[in-house]
Amino acid sequence: MRTIEELGRRAREAASFLASAGSREKDRGLLAMAAALREHTAEILAANALDTAHGVESRMSRALLDRLALDEKRIQGIAAAVEEIVALPDPVGRVDQGSVRPNGLSITRVRVPLGVAGIIYEARPNVTVDAAALCLKSGNACILRGGKEAIETNLALAGIMGRALEQAGFPAGAVQLVEDTSRETSREMMRANGLIDVLIPRGGAGLIRAVVENSTVPVIQTGVGNCHVYIDSPCDLQMGVRIIENAKCSRPSVCNAAETLLVHREVAEEFLPLAKAALDRYEVQLRGCPETRRILGESVRPATEEDYATEFGDYILAVRVVDSLEEAIDHIRQYSTGHSEAIVTSDYSHSRLFTQQVDAAAVYVNASTRFTDGGEFGLGAEIGISTQKLHARGPMGLGELTTTKYIVLGSGQTR
Amino acid sequence: MRTIEELGRRAREAASFLASAGSREKDRGLLAMAAALREHTAEILAANALDTAHGVESRMSRALLDRLALDEKRIQGIAAAVEEIVALPDPVGRVDQGSVRPNGLSITRVRVPLGVAGIIYEARPNVTVDAAALCLKSGNACILRGGKEAIETNLALAGIMGRALEQAGFPAGAVQLVEDTSRETSREMMRANGLIDVLIPRGGAGLIRAVVENSTVPVIQTGVGNCHVYIDSPCDLQMGVRIIENAKCSRPSVCNAAETLLVHREVAEEFLPLAKAALDRYEVQLRGCPETRRILGESVRPATEEDYATEFGDYILAVRVVDSLEEAIDHIRQYSTGHSEAIVTSDYSHSRLFTQQVDAAAVYVNASTRFTDGGEFGLGAEIGISTQKLHARGPMGLGELTTTKYIVLGSGQTR
Repeated sequence: MRTIEELGRRAREAASFLASAGSREKDRGLLAMAAALREHTAEILAANALDTAHGVESRMSRALLDRLALDEKRIQGIAAAVEEIVALPDPVGRVDQGSVRPNGLSITRVRVPLGVAGIIYEARPNVTVDAAALCLKSGNACILRGGKEAIETNLALAGIMGRALEQAGFPAGAVQLVEDTSRETSREMMRANGLIDVLIPRGGAGLIRAVVENSTVPVIQTGVGNCHVYIDSPCDLQMGVRIIENAKCSRPSVCNAAETLLVHREVAEEFLPLAKAALDRYEVQLRGCPETRRILGESVRPATEEDYATEFGDYILAVRVVDSLEEAIDHIRQYSTGHSEAIVTSDYSHSRLFTQQVDAAAVYVNASTRFTDGGEFGLGAEIGISTQKLHARGPMGLGELTTTKYIVLGSGQTR
Repeated sequence: MRTIEELGRRAREAASFLASAGSREKDRGLLAMAAALREHTAEILAANALDTAHGVESRMSRALLDRLALDEKRIQGIAAAVEEIVALPDPVGRVDQGSVRPNGLSITRVRVPLGVAGIIYEARPNVTVDAAALCLKSGNACILRGGKEAIETNLALAGIMGRALEQAGFPAGAVQLVEDTSRETSREMMRANGLIDVLIPRGGAGLIRAVVENSTVPVIQTGVGNCHVYIDSPCDLQMGVRIIENAKCSRPSVCNAAETLLVHREVAEEFLPLAKAALDRYEVQLRGCPETRRILGESVRPATEEDYATEFGDYILAVRVVDSLEEAIDHIRQYSTGHSEAIVTSDYSHSRLFTQQVDAAAVYVNASTRFTDGGEFGLGAEIGISTQKLHARGPMGLGELTTTKYIVLGSGQTR
């Protein structure tokens, strides 16, 4: 098994190669990867069966097992996702800005790959392929460090992709998997300054916090979403019901799902029973403030401070009645993770105040928080949704996997 | 003295205010700051005299004393720099991109302030004012943590700016100085996640390394420059002499000054004596490879590995003769800090190879590395020169002190 340092050195070399590879060449590599994944479906399924058997043995939760398990259709979907990346425009070489200075220097700022990206993730094997494909398209070498629960599947996927890329003329360091899934290897990745240019953790809040706290390599923080939907007064209450139903129930495990419903006191009496009726169909458990419980009854469990701070990722919704738009904004300021926040309102100035004052990657008026997504935003595939403010914020597409370089052409200028 | 936590809370509140302040309001604040600095010149000079007296007592080096000392002219210059920032366009509110999605959602990405910026710096009191002014213009609250050598000057400057801003209607947390200059306070700033959004260290390599290694708050790394000038074959040798003379000698202490001269073997015999003659006028000490010493004589001190890795910041230049463009690029790859790198060449394909393969914030053909500067690049004032790849690379102007927010306007869309 190669050490992180060995993987890093190989990746650095590959990064040089990838930085000057053209789009056509990279696309050929991606198509070779996709074809190889389709061709070796049986091999992937056999490896995945080992992981899932082991997961069942070790009493892995149903939700986790579901993320881990592949079938033929899922593998086709993974390969198709790679082919979709081929169709996206290559961000490398795009000129951001440029001008000729008064002294005749011609200065252009062009987009270039970041170099070597480290991806630390958990039990979803599709990340292995997605991340590799997005990195390749954007000219980055990648070092993939998945969870031990998926190691057999990941070894199979990385092996298949690696061989396909080598046959297509790419260096072996372009896509590499960390085979040693001990904690030590992720810690080494977090300290691999000079070898790894950026770390992108993808997974639960615990994983992300650990990477942010321990990494000296720059990190892009992704995916923790404690999202709010605020039902303002006045607003279209039926629209409000549809939006909270969609934001909570269409896919509760994802980061852009709503976790807390805020309701203006003036509409609470009418709105809350309507919302409850809609949410009851999904058996959503409500946890309410005293006013919510007064309106909906004592069968609603009381909400704690901790409930307001929690990303449930489940059919659970905290509910709070507020006295004003300002109180709603204050609540969001206190508990938001800066992911996606929505207001439902028919008041123009409230819509302006909300979008101006709420500090989040995406702020919505009269739409579901569930739209925060690279595909929905028109960026194509995404490597994650950044909830930090530096470098990238919101869905990160191929462009966010690049940096810039100033190229200055002169004729002997000195200062 | 306020703790970092207290400063952070006040800054957070001020950041909310600043985020929705208009350009006109912020410019009024900046003009008030500049006027107050001019008006209280005597107070600043008195405080500065205490610092310099203390510096003399504690045998501070002449270079450091020079950075610390203010006079009337320097204070006028500092105030004028603030007024120049007034004239720059406000980056906040600028729409980066926007479109209407097929489902009718209107999505725009607008620039918004980062929030609270922490600046950790050393003995240059002008940073106190520059950083405060750039942060204010870009809508950020700032927490300034200067070195203990300049504490009296910084207290005077921060007090004057703070009073001027309060009179102009700004909250007290907009510009704050950390009064306690113990190591503990910088360490607390590095761990103030949630209170400080970004840390920008400005100073020597040791300071920057310490911040990068210990901070869990995102950091923008600035200013370490081990820059190279490579004299290719063929090239205009006279141009090469002018460029290395300028890159080394026009201001050796700054980060965009050259530290190593690389020379192609084919031109070394003719070029090196010309370069030496020019550099001798500045008493530049050369440290050469064996081939350099064969050509220039044994009086040239031998270069060590460490010399090639060192940012001298002084009239010292490492010299190495290389066999090819590729060897020059390899040398740069090994020792570069990714700041500014230059080639002097008359070969078209060499110029392309160099700009494509050298990985640095700014890559020059036939021009001095000394141009890497916000003003020279047309960005206006800069808060530093980023040598990292995330968020900002190269000179950082007002735009780099902002992030983005997606504003999504709908009419009830769900997914």
